[in-house]
Amino acid sequence: MERNIAGRVGLEDLSRLCPILSRRNHPEFAEGGLVVEVGMVRFGVGLPVVIAGPCAVESAQQMIEVARRVKAAGADMLRGGAFKPRTSPHDFQGLGVEGLKMLRDAGDRTGLPVVTEVLDVRLVDVVSRYADMLQIGSRSMQNYPLLVEVGRSGKPVLLKRGMAASLCEWLGAAEYIANEGNLNIVLCERGIKTHAANEYSRYSLDLNVIPAVHAETFLPVIVDPSHATGTAPSVERASRAAIEVGASGLMIEVSNWGEEPEAQRPMCDADQAITPSTLGRIIRFIQNREAETEAVSDMA
Amino acid sequence: MERNIAGRVGLEDLSRLCPILSRRNHPEFAEGGLVVEVGMVRFGVGLPVVIAGPCAVESAQQMIEVARRVKAAGADMLRGGAFKPRTSPHDFQGLGVEGLKMLRDAGDRTGLPVVTEVLDVRLVDVVSRYADMLQIGSRSMQNYPLLVEVGRSGKPVLLKRGMAASLCEWLGAAEYIANEGNLNIVLCERGIKTHAANEYSRYSLDLNVIPAVHAETFLPVIVDPSHATGTAPSVERASRAAIEVGASGLMIEVSNWGEEPEAQRPMCDADQAITPSTLGRIIRFIQNREAETEAVSDMA
Amino acid sequence: MERNIAGRVGLEDLSRLCPILSRRNHPEFAEGGLVVEVGMVRFGVGLPVVIAGPCAVESAQQMIEVARRVKAAGADMLRGGAFKPRTSPHDFQGLGVEGLKMLRDAGDRTGLPVVTEVLDVRLVDVVSRYADMLQIGSRSMQNYPLLVEVGRSGKPVLLKRGMAASLCEWLGAAEYIANEGNLNIVLCERGIKTHAANEYSRYSLDLNVIPAVHAETFLPVIVDPSHATGTAPSVERASRAAIEVGASGLMIEVSNWGEEPEAQRPMCDADQAITPSTLGRIIRFIQNREAETEAVSDMA
Amino acid sequence: MERNIAGRVGLEDLSRLCPILSRRNHPEFAEGGLVVEVGMVRFGVGLPVVIAGPCAVESAQQMIEVARRVKAAGADMLRGGAFKPRTSPHDFQGLGVEGLKMLRDAGDRTGLPVVTEVLDVRLVDVVSRYADMLQIGSRSMQNYPLLVEVGRSGKPVLLKRGMAASLCEWLGAAEYIANEGNLNIVLCERGIKTHAANEYSRYSLDLNVIPAVHAETFLPVIVDPSHATGTAPSVERASRAAIEVGASGLMIEVSNWGEEPEAQRPMCDADQAITPSTLGRIIRFIQNREAETEAVSDMA
Repeated sequence: MERNIAGRVGLEDLSRLCPILSRRNHPEFAEGGLVVEVGMVRFGVGLPVVIAGPCAVESAQQMIEVARRVKAAGADMLRGGAFKPRTSPHDFQGLGVEGLKMLRDAGDRTGLPVVTEVLDVRLVDVVSRYADMLQIGSRSMQNYPLLVEVGRSGKPVLLKRGMAASLCEWLGAAEYIANEGNLNIVLCERGIKTHAANEYSRYSLDLNVIPAVHAETFLPVIVDPSHATGTAPSVERASRAAIEVGASGLMIEVSNWGEEPEAQRPMCDADQAITPSTLGRIIRFIQNREAETEAVSDMA
Repeated sequence: MERNIAGRVGLEDLSRLCPILSRRNHPEFAEGGLVVEVGMVRFGVGLPVVIAGPCAVESAQQMIEVARRVKAAGADMLRGGAFKPRTSPHDFQGLGVEGLKMLRDAGDRTGLPVVTEVLDVRLVDVVSRYADMLQIGSRSMQNYPLLVEVGRSGKPVLLKRGMAASLCEWLGAAEYIANEGNLNIVLCERGIKTHAANEYSRYSLDLNVIPAVHAETFLPVIVDPSHATGTAPSVERASRAAIEVGASGLMIEVSNWGEEPEAQRPMCDADQAITPSTLGRIIRFIQNREAETEAVSDMA
Repeated sequence: MERNIAGRVGLEDLSRLCPILSRRNHPEFAEGGLVVEVGMVRFGVGLPVVIAGPCAVESAQQMIEVARRVKAAGADMLRGGAFKPRTSPHDFQGLGVEGLKMLRDAGDRTGLPVVTEVLDVRLVDVVSRYADMLQIGSRSMQNYPLLVEVGRSGKPVLLKRGMAASLCEWLGAAEYIANEGNLNIVLCERGIKTHAANEYSRYSLDLNVIPAVHAETFLPVIVDPSHATGTAPSVERASRAAIEVGASGLMIEVSNWGEEPEAQRPMCDADQAITPSTLGRIIRFIQNREAETEAVSDMA
Repeated sequence: MERNIAGRVGLEDLSRLCPILSRRNHPEFAEGGLVVEVGMVRFGVGLPVVIAGPCAVESAQQMIEVARRVKAAGADMLRGGAFKPRTSPHDFQGLGVEGLKMLRDAGDRTGLPVVTEVLDVRLVDVVSRYADMLQIGSRSMQNYPLLVEVGRSGKPVLLKRGMAASLCEWLGAAEYIANEGNLNIVLCERGIKTHAANEYSRYSLDLNVIPAVHAETFLPVIVDPSHATGTAPSVERASRAAIEVGASGLMIEVSNWGEEPEAQRPMCDADQAITPSTLGRIIRFIQNREAETEAVSDMA
């Protein structure tokens, strides 16, 4: 029986595995961290960034209407999936390039930078033409060829944590992007699989990882409370909690369903979409707490 | 192969398994929940309650000095373990009844009600003589004879969640106490075991369970950020997060070590103990945010 | 942020935490391990031991009939719960002392030693009067006062692994029994809680722990395939697998339901109970493979 | 709070999510299941198939020597990674196309069909030219564009389970391949992430999933005991256990290191590689147990 487990990757190995991104290899980041810019939006400095929008782009009208509502609520960026990784090939897979155009158009009309998922290495170029930031989803966190291509694209990247990823595996994935010369990386915690998941929440939101990320790397990290909880009534509280542990932003799924007469029930993850009104409360919370932040700013 | 897993307990069974504590059996708690009183301290109404103190009672002097510091910082109750459930029988097991007396004395001198763990069914009476509230630790959550005895004691009970307990198992444990006619129960989330635990945190703090508890029962629920993170630098942020998801209080391990010249390194869990100064910041955070709470009060 | 997680217990600490039971402190067990005897039954040498019987003792008739069937099938010991730890206080809690008498009587009539769970420290004496071996259930694995009492009883103890217990926590629990001078301990793996549990199995059977137990201690370890799978159709295959990884025995829930006209559906865990006929197949499998065992006997 | 968790996928949904592969949609497979052929090798009928070879192709000499040893030991197929998904971009990434040629050559010289991982959708064609079977690794289980391409390739596919995949997510991934008209799919369990992983094993081998796979689909399923345990001393026992629960084969990492004077320590996962001699014992175990299999053949 081995005393040390084969293949085990521990924090002690981080500076060797991730020399580019490990905080302890970078005394210049002894204070604070890297600021990642997407248009006028800045992650890692100032108020936490709020990315909001539908789970999936379903139509030009839906995108524009949701974009207007989230913009009015104070969101900084717009999200919407044109390529959806679904458990079954028989479920809606997204509108593809047409969806990218609808997202781009909604972003242009509202002045919001847009982020969308790319899950096919062959589509990095086309998605890069329409999006301001490329999202790597949880299921793609260890799709290394894809990480290399988004690294080469030079575009800002939103790297979601895999559902079972250790901190080392997550930062190792980011290192693949950085290794191509692209440091414009924002990490995103979105919940992990645990024995507790599926009884009352979809995943288990792991907020302990946020201060750990700050300790190990200089990259900004945000939280996706929509997937991490899976239920709309929990999203507002989880968002507030994420901000309190030091998240540099939030990515939240929003639908006009229930607030706009013509809005329809979302085709994906309808149960976790919040209304624009709830989004507005979350953003006001962020704006009103600025002062307190300084109290613990030394802890990051 | 079974279609439905043997022995599976889901939320749908809660009102049958826990008829006394299930919210949906109690229209009188359609709004808000039960208020549990420990002396002048009230859980479930008003500001969140802060319970603070050392992991273990180590000496009369240590207890009194920590009690004075946490009282000065604004804590509402005092904690300290006299009976410690340790992984090895060769490790410090607590001072026993002598420790109870030291805890009681420190509470009396500072005017703070005291809570301490009881883990032996034969000691419920003696612990009840010295403590204002009885703590059932995670390892004892399913010690049903013990739950019955603390139920019969009539004392307020702090019931910590087991490290692998489902919500149904946790509320089922509370139902054993309630079934003896004792509804003075406060639940406490303290982190669960997951694949992520032990890389950067001791356990995984499961804040998703807080709104789920509010949805399923009328009992107040608090959070123990000390065990849930296992590292002092994470405790302040985890505490703020717990308050934001709706926790009715916090139980935090505090040591004067590092702030008082004569204070010694704690004998148990030293790495997760915060200083009285950090405790003070957490309590000021709670006092300063009262207003915001109302904004989401309808969500509980 | 700590580099080393507070409170973390790793295998490297085992010889310190469990000096009595750690294999590396005992050169006399360089080969093989301790043999634990219960009457004529011997764990840790020869063929794996098969403990079989109903989940709960429900009546004298049920106990005797099941005892006769499992005896006829070739079982070595009889199991049956008189005190049942149930998720809800409103569910059947077992027949108590009356159940112990029925179990004892069934054992005497069939010549099978009996094992039954004790979960109340105040009942160790009475359970010891009726049982040949005391079972500590998963929910009681860290009930330290109970472990001390079963240690003092001098009775052989069957210590089930907690649903979230690490190997160190499990062996630490055994060390509490050993620390009272009682080395007659048999460990029992019964499945752990994971993200996979509850979709197609009740728990996740962790067979990787069996060789790890052999590497770290000299105590025999058996497997409970009934709880570990939660579904009868999986029990036979899981039993065979457990034997192949080196388990020194099996504890299996058996019901006459479906094979005896008057037999009733079990009151607890009915879906995981196998028939006496299936038990017979499992026992024949054990008897027929003896030869192969030697091939890998050097690996224990 | 939702009563039913958003996005939850349960077994009850399988026939809808995976209509092509769900057993209950296919009465023609009421008995047994699909046979997948790779050259002369047949998965799903007859003796379990043994795939063996190094973790990574390191040199032509290493490949040929290991191939000769595993062939001599009785293996049915040869494995070896030319493209390695590594946690860090700074670690060895595999020899690429040169490695494919070395693997192909070693297979041709020994008459063993070869399987190797493809992790880049752009390389499916080239890998298909050299390999007899395409392996989709755990990290790529939800790389849907890749699954579509291997589906279109018409090549037999070995689909490993993701480290946190539910049975539905795993079969949903297989459905993407089947949806392209390619039913030549063999599933492979390789261990999941749990709280127990990393203390004494690399992952937790989930053998409960094998009978569940048989119940839900007609595809054959094998086990990778090397990754599932992470430690060579556990591989032989885990292999025997996998066969007992009904696995249609094994994929095992083998190295000549320690048995051949010129063999070197493997560059990846050295601690889990077994010797050709141990592989020989595992294969003899499979050959010697044929008879017993029939006893439970009705259970598949």
